[in-house]
Amino acid sequence: MKSHDDLFQSMSIDGLAARYRAGTLTPRRLVEAIAARTSGDDPHHAWIRPLSRDEMMRYVDALEGRDLDTLPLYGIPFAIKDNIDLAGIPTTAACPAYAYTPTASAPVVARLIAAGAIPVGKTNLDQFATGLSGQRSPHGACRNALDPRYASGGSSSGSAVSVALGLAAFSLGTDTAGSGRVPAAFHGLIGLKPTKGLLSTVGVVPACKSLDCVSIFARSADDAQRVFDAARGVTEGDPYARAFQPPQAVTQPGAQRSLRGVRFGVPRANQLEFFGDTSYAHAFDAALARLRSAGADLIEIDFEPFLATARLLYEGPWVAERLAALREFAAAQPDALHPVIREILRGAARWSAADAFAAFDRLALLRMQAAEVWPRIDAIVTPTSATTATVDELEADPIRVNSRFGYYTNFVNLLDLSALAVPAGLCTIGKHAGLPFGVTFVARAHEDAMLLELARAWRDETAAASTSANDATAAHPGESHGRH
Amino acid sequence: MKSHDDLFQSMSIDGLAARYRAGTLTPRRLVEAIAARTSGDDPHHAWIRPLSRDEMMRYVDALEGRDLDTLPLYGIPFAIKDNIDLAGIPTTAACPAYAYTPTASAPVVARLIAAGAIPVGKTNLDQFATGLSGQRSPHGACRNALDPRYASGGSSSGSAVSVALGLAAFSLGTDTAGSGRVPAAFHGLIGLKPTKGLLSTVGVVPACKSLDCVSIFARSADDAQRVFDAARGVTEGDPYARAFQPPQAVTQPGAQRSLRGVRFGVPRANQLEFFGDTSYAHAFDAALARLRSAGADLIEIDFEPFLATARLLYEGPWVAERLAALREFAAAQPDALHPVIREILRGAARWSAADAFAAFDRLALLRMQAAEVWPRIDAIVTPTSATTATVDELEADPIRVNSRFGYYTNFVNLLDLSALAVPAGLCTIGKHAGLPFGVTFVARAHEDAMLLELARAWRDETAAASTSANDATAAHPGESHGRH
Repeated sequence: MKSHDDLFQSMSIDGLAARYRAGTLTPRRLVEAIAARTSGDDPHHAWIRPLSRDEMMRYVDALEGRDLDTLPLYGIPFAIKDNIDLAGIPTTAACPAYAYTPTASAPVVARLIAAGAIPVGKTNLDQFATGLSGQRSPHGACRNALDPRYASGGSSSGSAVSVALGLAAFSLGTDTAGSGRVPAAFHGLIGLKPTKGLLSTVGVVPACKSLDCVSIFARSADDAQRVFDAARGVTEGDPYARAFQPPQAVTQPGAQRSLRGVRFGVPRANQLEFFGDTSYAHAFDAALARLRSAGADLIEIDFEPFLATARLLYEGPWVAERLAALREFAAAQPDALHPVIREILRGAARWSAADAFAAFDRLALLRMQAAEVWPRIDAIVTPTSATTATVDELEADPIRVNSRFGYYTNFVNLLDLSALAVPAGLCTIGKHAGLPFGVTFVARAHEDAMLLELARAWRDETAAASTSANDATAAHPGESHGRH
Repeated sequence: MKSHDDLFQSMSIDGLAARYRAGTLTPRRLVEAIAARTSGDDPHHAWIRPLSRDEMMRYVDALEGRDLDTLPLYGIPFAIKDNIDLAGIPTTAACPAYAYTPTASAPVVARLIAAGAIPVGKTNLDQFATGLSGQRSPHGACRNALDPRYASGGSSSGSAVSVALGLAAFSLGTDTAGSGRVPAAFHGLIGLKPTKGLLSTVGVVPACKSLDCVSIFARSADDAQRVFDAARGVTEGDPYARAFQPPQAVTQPGAQRSLRGVRFGVPRANQLEFFGDTSYAHAFDAALARLRSAGADLIEIDFEPFLATARLLYEGPWVAERLAALREFAAAQPDALHPVIREILRGAARWSAADAFAAFDRLALLRMQAAEVWPRIDAIVTPTSATTATVDELEADPIRVNSRFGYYTNFVNLLDLSALAVPAGLCTIGKHAGLPFGVTFVARAHEDAMLLELARAWRDETAAASTSANDATAAHPGESHGRH
């Protein structure tokens, strides 16, 4: 398989399409190569159920007579978080006792397959998508693809790892409180948390049903855009579905690849939190400096309404929404639950309906306060996670360390915002030097395309800066970490 | 005061304005006349706190130098449900121990006063706006202005009675589950339950904060429209405020006063419920016949998603939202509560947050199902209440009879709809013959003006029918019941 190393190191939708067009690769040969890898050892614990060669070949067979001109994702391999249905393969949510085998794929998966994409397997996750660490799975702690001592991030752990390892060109995760963004940041990937309702959550095991989003991991904003365009759609009978209503573009048509004049809201210095992590604090400063030198306007905002919303999610009654979805199962088979998840669901039972209504009232106020930033800015930029951690550190303190990862992510769905985790080079100082750092751009609902546009401009700017200054922080691990 | 009998019998905004313009009446003389009435006996238990002559005169004084050309509600007397703040007068929500004296009026009241309206008193209600009967008050069961053996309906009981007695040209109520519509129907009045958020609920004692609406009682759709226009507005700092976004009118400009071609959704016959009340069943049939003869299209709809939503409100966890608003007070002073309210709040404590989230998920589904009617119809028409009852009947069975009044009203705010209770003549057969019957027109959010337009056309049609057929069912008790 040595001849495919280059393929795995830089797998992208365009790259695969170019090879297909040139005749140097076929979907069949690609699937053979992927099967050879995913059927072997899985030291990262990325997979719950990789598809067999034969299972994948059925999707290749279905491409017979079709090509790149008719299918935007023709022959593009993708991984699926194992809380999203793929027809004929068990969905487990990382809880074997919960498993069921769906006869139909989730609509979001079916749309991608219809666009030509090939599922390669079901990936590991924090059980029931409850966590941001990737360590709460009976299938083993999911290890970072770039440095296996480190956590993968979660809950969409295996979906990030499979793309980082080059075993899929993109993957689907879910993101309720940050599960599609934190593992993207820990792997130097793009992590799109689309506007709620644009990607159907039908056929997805619910976490917090009113907040759940299907998310996209990819190596570039271009790839994420292609997947977003193919995956989107209103599914009949889905009460949470929304039609995409993109507003007018904020950038001028001729200036789409520039950050010049884009107004980024940045939390006040005393509202930033890194939990003592100098690597991340320094990397965020560097990212802001790069935005500034690219001509972006950095505008200080009061981040408190966002932080208060994040606390409301993490410390408030929404955990009972997870319980509502699992109540019968958790009551019938408590021992089937991961101990951390069991503890969390047990705690959820203490919240009363009056508590829930009081929290909604508080949320209404916070939504209003948070919305005050929008007339002044186009997007918010924050670190994606406040810090990172090793698998050992998470094992020693699983709840507290996990919660640090959500400091900048927890508020997004409660406030009905769109978010895009974007690679921002490598940490250059401190204990995490050499590991990727990521920022997240956050905008209003339906601004997803604008966020992807900003990410493209950000990549172009940092690539240019890297060429001119040969600066290590401008590296794009997302495009090269197949080597690890 | 005999000279004013005619005034009280037909008090309307236009009528008062005409007298002011003609110089046959002044706001000062009107206030003298009202004070003479409201300072005396209150056999209907309409008032918790009528304003004194002197208190009203302060508002008259403030009109000095202003007139009808600058103030759309110049000198128009209005009553205020006693869960809405009027500066300097205690707000009690019909719970004396809960009373506080606000220094500022609720913004919705302040807007009406700024438009020239004169507050005449705070009206009786079901305690904490919890009920549809008007009988749950320590200030006495509120009695129907047309027949004091009958219940007023509630919870905005005194606000309906004060207008029906001609002691105010309009009044403010609140309407969470039907409290602004049921008492309107029982008095032959217009009851506008506007789109949520258009009339500010700041300065209103919360019932279910996410559902509460300020409502308007008036004798005609014209008057309700004038009050709606003056009362509306986004209050800064109100998280529940929404700007009015009326859609295109459904009727042609030249045909605004016609019901011809208007598409009314009517529940299937087996989804109508009258609890054995032949008076109401017959009156509703007559109303449908009149709509049909006016050229409206009656289109059968599946009412089940609406009924299921109504049950969700009445039998589900939203009662805990009432508890959330009153938790501290109810815990500290349980004996200060009306026994029925105490029992209801006690029951609310049994709902868990998981129950609440499960109910929201169910509501999301019902909202989607209910919304399927709208492409086919312009409005739904139903009876406003399924039946009526005497004060004695309600005393004998306070919970069950009360719930019957909400059969057609409970779903409206959960589905984010607008609704207008409209007089539909008198019952002509059965035990309630001679008492008014009302229908409600229901439409999507922000369709309030369309509903008022339909009500004007409905009144014109029934007036014409009455003239031609001399039909008792076409009487307009709302415009004549000062005689009772």
